[in-house]
Amino acid sequence: MNILLVLAHPEPASLNGALHRFMAEHLRAAGHSVQTSDLYAMRWKPALDADDFPARDSAARFDPVRDSLHAFQGGTQTADIAAEQRKLLWADAVILQFPLWWYSMPAILKGWIERIYAYGFAYGVGEHSDTRWGDRFGQGVMAGKRAMVVTTTGGWASHYAPRGINGPIDDLLFPIHHGVLYYPGFDVLPPYVVHRTDKVDQAAYARIEEELGRRLDTLWTTDPIPFRPQNAGDYEIPALTLRAHIAPGETGFAVHSTAKPARLD
Amino acid sequence: MNILLVLAHPEPASLNGALHRFMAEHLRAAGHSVQTSDLYAMRWKPALDADDFPARDSAARFDPVRDSLHAFQGGTQTADIAAEQRKLLWADAVILQFPLWWYSMPAILKGWIERIYAYGFAYGVGEHSDTRWGDRFGQGVMAGKRAMVVTTTGGWASHYAPRGINGPIDDLLFPIHHGVLYYPGFDVLPPYVVHRTDKVDQAAYARIEEELGRRLDTLWTTDPIPFRPQNAGDYEIPALTLRAHIAPGETGFAVHSTAKPARLD
Repeated sequence: MNILLVLAHPEPASLNGALHRFMAEHLRAAGHSVQTSDLYAMRWKPALDADDFPARDSAARFDPVRDSLHAFQGGTQTADIAAEQRKLLWADAVILQFPLWWYSMPAILKGWIERIYAYGFAYGVGEHSDTRWGDRFGQGVMAGKRAMVVTTTGGWASHYAPRGINGPIDDLLFPIHHGVLYYPGFDVLPPYVVHRTDKVDQAAYARIEEELGRRLDTLWTTDPIPFRPQNAGDYEIPALTLRAHIAPGETGFAVHSTAKPARLD
Repeated sequence: MNILLVLAHPEPASLNGALHRFMAEHLRAAGHSVQTSDLYAMRWKPALDADDFPARDSAARFDPVRDSLHAFQGGTQTADIAAEQRKLLWADAVILQFPLWWYSMPAILKGWIERIYAYGFAYGVGEHSDTRWGDRFGQGVMAGKRAMVVTTTGGWASHYAPRGINGPIDDLLFPIHHGVLYYPGFDVLPPYVVHRTDKVDQAAYARIEEELGRRLDTLWTTDPIPFRPQNAGDYEIPALTLRAHIAPGETGFAVHSTAKPARLD
């Protein structure tokens, strides 16, 4: 299979750098094809701006949505954006790897999403009408592909537990899992999270490689997070609220998945 | 009072650009002092990397936390970082304004946080021990200051409702409200959100200015989101989980505030 490893860490001699190399080697040893997007090493341009659209009318007001559509449809995107889109189309699975900085992905990775998720490519796909709100959340260009987040935190697992002060890790990752990955059609696997990175000694690192290696070995068989597809009847359209008989009275991120709620521990 | 307006939008002739200018004028007309950080206009460097620490030992492994501490303590931060930190210290209130892109802040604003939130400045403040986990979540360098998010979405309000497909807007903003703003001590006001930006005509725009103007007029009297302080007894330390008798059996972002849960509509 074809696997794209995206890394957002500025230091190769870091835990994230080591895990990135481990994943590439492990997957290649298993016979897969691997491409990498090491965003810091590539000096990826993080900020979406008008320079991303060299063919646009520079006298006109810059509209990220409209200009993105025109560049995507007209084949006038910048080479760096087009190259990353080709990697996504090539991949059967994509792994986003990053340290959790201020409870989300690093800016350079957020900017990778913003710039390569063009209108017509990752959103604005399919019919948009009063009865159909596009091919998204379970449908879209990435349908049939798998995605997984691998992330690290300085804080303890308990800080990210269902009643931990930072908020549950699954909720912190929901905007990425559901909003960035499920949106254009990826099946999203449960994340692999390393906590308390400053305590990772050699023994802990060996355990991490073993666990992460198992996650890679089961990339094709692990059940994805069972998010609810937008266009299979669970949502009112165009309000896009969950129909009253589904998870009645419940609210929040968790209602958009059919998984059982996290157990308290 | 002193107010810092931070804007993350690439086009001055946008709804966000217009609201940014409106806020600056409205606040100045009310007698306040205003500074602005228009991140795109400033060509703000978005990605935190080793170049941010010119005095570091370039032969050593780059450690964002340790190098940040040394640069902050040693007075060797870059001029752009130090200038933004001075603005934060000067401000009585900070307004972060941005379009919601992929369910979070634009990369350029995320990178503003990552780069200026130095160790010793925004985190790593106060005693860290088995019984005290720093001055944060309600304490810290920003204690006594207020912060508010002003954001825009293309989607409808119902898409961001308690049962809307994108997830509730309050939950999407929690990592910013609680994790970025409350963490170093800000009192965080409820956000001002404009939905369905492509439908904002002149009449709607006039209503938005009126509403937003009222929010600015009540910046000092509006009740902040009642997040639970870390160090006032609600949390076990060092596990940092909510004590069993607080919101018993409940989980998720909402347990970290004493506000009543969102009403279903």
